[in-house]
Amino acid sequence: MKRNLFITFEGPEGAGKSTVLQKIVERMQTQNIDVLSTREPGGIEIAEKIREVILNPAHTAMDERTEALLYAAARSQHFYEKVIPALHQGQLVLCDRFIDSSLAYQGHARGIGIDEVLAINEFAIGKRMPDLTVLFDLEPSVGLARIQAHSSREVNRLDVESLAFHKRVREGYHIVMNRYPDRIKLVNADQHLDQVVENVWDILTNFLNEKK
Amino acid sequence: MKRNLFITFEGPEGAGKSTVLQKIVERMQTQNIDVLSTREPGGIEIAEKIREVILNPAHTAMDERTEALLYAAARSQHFYEKVIPALHQGQLVLCDRFIDSSLAYQGHARGIGIDEVLAINEFAIGKRMPDLTVLFDLEPSVGLARIQAHSSREVNRLDVESLAFHKRVREGYHIVMNRYPDRIKLVNADQHLDQVVENVWDILTNFLNEKK
Repeated sequence: MKRNLFITFEGPEGAGKSTVLQKIVERMQTQNIDVLSTREPGGIEIAEKIREVILNPAHTAMDERTEALLYAAARSQHFYEKVIPALHQGQLVLCDRFIDSSLAYQGHARGIGIDEVLAINEFAIGKRMPDLTVLFDLEPSVGLARIQAHSSREVNRLDVESLAFHKRVREGYHIVMNRYPDRIKLVNADQHLDQVVENVWDILTNFLNEKK
Repeated sequence: MKRNLFITFEGPEGAGKSTVLQKIVERMQTQNIDVLSTREPGGIEIAEKIREVILNPAHTAMDERTEALLYAAARSQHFYEKVIPALHQGQLVLCDRFIDSSLAYQGHARGIGIDEVLAINEFAIGKRMPDLTVLFDLEPSVGLARIQAHSSREVNRLDVESLAFHKRVREGYHIVMNRYPDRIKLVNADQHLDQVVENVWDILTNFLNEKK
């Protein structure tokens, strides 16, 4: 089975991406699939330092273009230092957030423009887009309620944005999905976690079987 | 006298930029010119945090595109949070390094390409280029010898690059100067410091008098 594929998980905070990703990885490992799971922004030392600057709740004065450039910088480092080497070694790479987050959050929700944000991201990673993207779709009010219910969860600078902002994020994701309909597969994240895991598992295994 | 102008100082490390800038500011203040002196990367809290990530000598694994994006991110923040407000208040702004550093260092010396690096910087700051740029020109071997002679000086990740790299930086600056001949004025930095200050003072006062 060809496995050096690059698969990203996208969606708002509170959609369950990280939890589902972890369960998927565990299931893959029981099937002896050589999988690397990683996340953005971060995933490697320099990118984690950039993450700290981006998500620091004290940095309320951060300009939206600075934010977009920092995400692209962290992406470039993580991509060349971790993702590409893993793919070259034949690993399947699952990444929590990637370029579509920037297109939805900074490009659409912040209002910079999807094409402008795409351009700086192509500077960062070239034309290498993910092979497959699973988009966790959820009413923003449901996602926000989940975040607030988990008081132990790290609260970052983007979580505290308004409901209106998170609605624009969802709208942004839908625009991006319409731009890349072959790559991006939507999952209903407003279901029991086990059901979401099953849906994602089906999408991934169908995709991997196609690539056999 | 119209003074809300944006003037940048460019050139290699060891050329005396920062020292000359300080002496120019002192002389301007005795003439009651309302001047703000600042520097890149940094000059304001978020940008200083980004500066720490860029210049940390431990970050030898930093990808060249990450570096270019981080400089653009710091530039955007510093520009919108500090430079633009000062210009709006009628201040003359003198800045130690700006966009031409990225074009010379990352665009040419690192080999990414001047046009590509210009594009991400236009994302960062729009089309707003400096009104005037003073380029400190110096044989790279002379600049490096000066850096090594000052052991108390902070040594950063770019200082420790090879002589060949610093030669490419100078070449990059010359290419950029040929691209913007009206904006960029060259100063011979291989002279006694007092003479360099006089030359820069003449360039600045001529420019300010033209803009009366």
